[in-house]
Amino acid sequence: MQLFFHPNLIENEIILPEDESKHCVRVLRKKVGDKIILIDGKGTEAITEIVDDNPKKCKLLIRIKNQKSKNQKSKLHLIVAPTKNFEKMEWMIEKCVEMGIDEITFIETANSERAKINLERCEKIAISAIKQSKQYWLPKINELQKFDSFLKKLETKNENELRCMAWCETELTEHLKHHIRTSANQLICLLIGPEGDFTGNEVQLAKSKDFIPVSLGENILRTETAALYATAIINSMD
Amino acid sequence: MQLFFHPNLIENEIILPEDESKHCVRVLRKKVGDKIILIDGKGTEAITEIVDDNPKKCKLLIRIKNQKSKNQKSKLHLIVAPTKNFEKMEWMIEKCVEMGIDEITFIETANSERAKINLERCEKIAISAIKQSKQYWLPKINELQKFDSFLKKLETKNENELRCMAWCETELTEHLKHHIRTSANQLICLLIGPEGDFTGNEVQLAKSKDFIPVSLGENILRTETAALYATAIINSMD
Repeated sequence: MQLFFHPNLIENEIILPEDESKHCVRVLRKKVGDKIILIDGKGTEAITEIVDDNPKKCKLLIRIKNQKSKNQKSKLHLIVAPTKNFEKMEWMIEKCVEMGIDEITFIETANSERAKINLERCEKIAISAIKQSKQYWLPKINELQKFDSFLKKLETKNENELRCMAWCETELTEHLKHHIRTSANQLICLLIGPEGDFTGNEVQLAKSKDFIPVSLGENILRTETAALYATAIINSMD
Repeated sequence: MQLFFHPNLIENEIILPEDESKHCVRVLRKKVGDKIILIDGKGTEAITEIVDDNPKKCKLLIRIKNQKSKNQKSKLHLIVAPTKNFEKMEWMIEKCVEMGIDEITFIETANSERAKINLERCEKIAISAIKQSKQYWLPKINELQKFDSFLKKLETKNENELRCMAWCETELTEHLKHHIRTSANQLICLLIGPEGDFTGNEVQLAKSKDFIPVSLGENILRTETAALYATAIINSMD
């Protein structure tokens, strides 16, 4: 069954936003009395009944509310330098969210080709992807920030955290999968650099914050492909 | 270093096709005497020297030729019902080829939303992806065919082959990863159905050809995401 999204499921009476109302009433032809399921991206599932099938502000009453527990798999925080063509990043967000991810932070590095993102659009894509893939938790997407300020803000790494960076330099680095501890509820922070790669300086800075270089296999992957590949592997390892 | 593609590296003298000539001479500003590397998608790497930097028909002489051996990882043959929006399939081809895949067959099923593909365009995307990711073998992409005729043509499964289908029905199916034998040089044939899923009939037909249902995790993945997820996992398991 199709899921609908509303960020706030605290009150009993819910008015769907215009686009969701239209989709519900015009596209899916739902009527007064029909039941629809809402999620808030914070673990709540609400089974609701339509009390006013207005196609611009469809009104619902919550009948049953369930709080879903977050699964105990590893958490993935992807830290990525966006590509010049942002469509690739939108695709990456959709696919990574479908497969399962907790947080995405966009960074501006020395070799970055893009210093702006449309955060609202990124969030819309993420909401649509969790609805599509039937998930109850909305990943956090963070505004683009300078790489060095992102690193400076990072707290000391704790023992349940893996900090790694996909680094293109030919070094004898171990594959990401060998660093993942299964069933450990580990937080994995993965840095993916821009097409021009991280500078030596940036690599040193990341290393000083306990990021270790990891390999993503023999093939040279584009930024967005590296993100998809890593997300798939991390999700399959629990 | 950037790779160039030419399907035939048998003769010593090579003329690049117009688009590759233009890219080489106009975009990368290569001149007579410069060395460029060519691949033929069949394992050959040729180090060549430009002898005529004509931007429409750049002429090269092969100086050194190496035959790369195919790596002994599992082979993946993806059999997929294309989505209505073929752009998603083009993206899927690019990403799967970058990560590593051997063959893609498009099938027409009862619930398919598309009965035509542009094979030439698919091949161009695959060529561009192997050049980008520095691979020497071009995956085979097969013309769209009816699912039942595809199955009929299949030979008896041999012991080094895994035939599986990503099936959305809620069944207690085991995850794909549990079926993969690492370091076995296994041929994995993975069926991915259309949005409306395979029909019961199609599932029976596939089962009669030894395809077993496998799970791709808890999240409901779109066709192209399922393909990416499976390709990443299979590539990471060697």
